[in-house]
Amino acid sequence: MNEDDFLSALRGLPLHPGAMNLSDDAARLSEFVLTKDLLVEGVHYLPGDSAGDVAWKLMAVNLSDLAAKGAAPVGVLLGYPLGEDAWDRAFLKGLRAACEAFACPLLGGDTVRGVGLRTLSLTAIGRAGPKVPLRSGAQAGHTLWVAGTIGDAGLGLALAMSGMGPSVLLDAYRRPMPLIEAGCALGPVVTAMCDVSDGLLIDTARMAAASQCGAVIDLSCIPRSPAARELAGSSREARLEAATAGDDYALLFALPHGTSPPVEARRVGWFEAGFGLRLIDGGESVPLPASLGWEHGRD
Amino acid sequence: MNEDDFLSALRGLPLHPGAMNLSDDAARLSEFVLTKDLLVEGVHYLPGDSAGDVAWKLMAVNLSDLAAKGAAPVGVLLGYPLGEDAWDRAFLKGLRAACEAFACPLLGGDTVRGVGLRTLSLTAIGRAGPKVPLRSGAQAGHTLWVAGTIGDAGLGLALAMSGMGPSVLLDAYRRPMPLIEAGCALGPVVTAMCDVSDGLLIDTARMAAASQCGAVIDLSCIPRSPAARELAGSSREARLEAATAGDDYALLFALPHGTSPPVEARRVGWFEAGFGLRLIDGGESVPLPASLGWEHGRD
Repeated sequence: MNEDDFLSALRGLPLHPGAMNLSDDAARLSEFVLTKDLLVEGVHYLPGDSAGDVAWKLMAVNLSDLAAKGAAPVGVLLGYPLGEDAWDRAFLKGLRAACEAFACPLLGGDTVRGVGLRTLSLTAIGRAGPKVPLRSGAQAGHTLWVAGTIGDAGLGLALAMSGMGPSVLLDAYRRPMPLIEAGCALGPVVTAMCDVSDGLLIDTARMAAASQCGAVIDLSCIPRSPAARELAGSSREARLEAATAGDDYALLFALPHGTSPPVEARRVGWFEAGFGLRLIDGGESVPLPASLGWEHGRD
Repeated sequence: MNEDDFLSALRGLPLHPGAMNLSDDAARLSEFVLTKDLLVEGVHYLPGDSAGDVAWKLMAVNLSDLAAKGAAPVGVLLGYPLGEDAWDRAFLKGLRAACEAFACPLLGGDTVRGVGLRTLSLTAIGRAGPKVPLRSGAQAGHTLWVAGTIGDAGLGLALAMSGMGPSVLLDAYRRPMPLIEAGCALGPVVTAMCDVSDGLLIDTARMAAASQCGAVIDLSCIPRSPAARELAGSSREARLEAATAGDDYALLFALPHGTSPPVEARRVGWFEAGFGLRLIDGGESVPLPASLGWEHGRD
């Protein structure tokens, strides 16, 4: 089963109303937003990656899911498989750095004996803002925006294999920054929001599908960092590469036509009647690439 | 690092007040109790165990932690590594059965591509009762009680290797029943409570240590099922075996002297001034066994 099949099957189980039919990356419960993201060694990070960076990333990916729901972090529960001493100690150091950087304390968790490749898990709890934006709230005519940059982490991952390259790109892969403040500011005004964890194209397609409409992305508008443009250039191929790379933890959101976002962001497209995703590059129509991004259980 | 070392190190990180210094198996947040327990293939269950039983057990061990805090289940978040289709489908079936049996719906979670041995994780959220009993509330003079039976799952695990034996023992290992109703009834009246997940002796020693006092267990009072007594006999060795076996998910609790519990339970000992655990068997003093139970990262 791939992730979509499994999710469909889970939807047949007894669901809490706060699960919102499992169509978002987070659940609601009273004044809280809850999310749970795993990192698997060899899948979400390289076996040689530093334990401190892995700990940071585990926090960051979860807090990014909270940010996408406009929620500020309250605390986390850690699921940790014990391994080698040095790795465990470096992990703790990275976790402390992330707890402090994101003002997010530890609430609890479980420690077990690890076997083989690590599966790390974190549950993050945030305090919901006045409105919890869903993935499904976009409508035809709404504009599509990105806060943060796209494609840096994908380039950083490629560089991490050699360990050499601009630190802004390596850091985007190793120590991503969840856009917590931006998410909290955006929460009350957006009509839909999610983070860009699996790739701009696939996450946009998912937002459009959840919202039962179509979406158009203009490749000429994708926000890329100066370092990414310098390293990979600005060809359409490079921009498509960025738009299908994962791990960026930018925020993707919809606004009613004519509304401006309260944070720095780039308008990258719009929603339209119908379904599916269309790409343009300035005025020109561009065919969709074979893969829109990262899909678990399908590679 | 073993589990205790890692926990000590975690206590040096920024902690949420609801973490209660990580000295319990659950955290408090507003009107909720949160817990997170992992199951590792080859550590917490046998690689050949049925996926449906593993799903059940994952729910049961987490809801047992809630029961020990007097909390009724609200919902769970699942962390699941995708593997073989047949296993995934059987897991879903067992999860559904547990959701229905324990009236506990799914709130959310994460699905990833699995690699090698499975690490399954669940976060369970419960609604706290009027009082959340801690592990640390016992005092010298309080009596020590067990609701449920001790040693059945340990025998069931041994039988599961061959697949033959009394179903009540096999079921105790394969489909443990968290004592949710008993936990909710006990919550307001006990002075300390935890579940017996790693063994009666080790869990009692932990309760005594957290409560900064000593504890005495009378081996002649340990509640064992008729099936366990029939299979393993009632020798001191058999009773010590039961008292150090894990996976029982009975409830262990303390009451002020002279107080009776509101549910069926057996008085197995008492707390005293000092520290550490002492064993007696009727009137006779018994030396502590080399291992008091299951310790993660130490075997």
